[in-house]
Amino acid sequence: MQLTRYTDYALRTLIQAALLPEGERLSVAEVTATYDISRSHVMKIVQRLGQLGYLRNIRGKGGGIELGMNPDEINIGKVVMDMEPNLQVIDCNSPYCRLQPACRLKGVLIEAMNAFVAVLESYTLADLLENKDELVQLLTFREAS
Amino acid sequence: MQLTRYTDYALRTLIQAALLPEGERLSVAEVTATYDISRSHVMKIVQRLGQLGYLRNIRGKGGGIELGMNPDEINIGKVVMDMEPNLQVIDCNSPYCRLQPACRLKGVLIEAMNAFVAVLESYTLADLLENKDELVQLLTFREAS
Repeated sequence: MQLTRYTDYALRTLIQAALLPEGERLSVAEVTATYDISRSHVMKIVQRLGQLGYLRNIRGKGGGIELGMNPDEINIGKVVMDMEPNLQVIDCNSPYCRLQPACRLKGVLIEAMNAFVAVLESYTLADLLENKDELVQLLTFREAS
Repeated sequence: MQLTRYTDYALRTLIQAALLPEGERLSVAEVTATYDISRSHVMKIVQRLGQLGYLRNIRGKGGGIELGMNPDEINIGKVVMDMEPNLQVIDCNSPYCRLQPACRLKGVLIEAMNAFVAVLESYTLADLLENKDELVQLLTFREAS
């Protein structure tokens, strides 16, 4: 059971944007290079994160990507729910399960998924940046080498 | 984020086996027909559930599948952990994420997955069978129609 790469990369991109020095912006190419993700993936993710207000995508010279909200306003549970196409733990309709009308398993799985999301909802992007200096170091290390 | 079909079908198979009338056994063909799952899928799942002791697979005439433990000994969390190939919520190595050494996101995702599993661990197969009569009705309905 894994989150989609789409959600994974969205979280990575938000962390990278949050690590930018004051006033600087990120390019799609930088995200692509940092994580070895294809450009088309990053483009799609950045666009979606922009639509949702998590990122601001500024066009033209000096443009680029920056956070659209403060890190403490970006709730990790909300980002996951926004990005993940499906949080139903199993699909009772594919193939159709005829126990559905009386099935107790589904309720148990919903309860478990709610517990999963509740933990994520207790964190914001700011909580992931408490060791910001260390993270910045890891990003710049490769550029310097 | 979904469980694999492998785990989903394993849970369905265990429920079906638990609904058998006293002394009766289930065939692979019955599981296949009940849920419209391919025979090769069911064979693989039944074999694995047998290895793990959840099912007993009896060969020969009068043979078939039956539960290998009492329903209240079959823990849903344990079944999911046994069947699911991967409970790492994201894969930090594919593609490699260079924030890894200092990443706080990973810890948050592990905490969330632990909460997910903890809920499942609080249920046994017996808890899913409290409305056994209703479930049996749903299984026999199609055979009768």
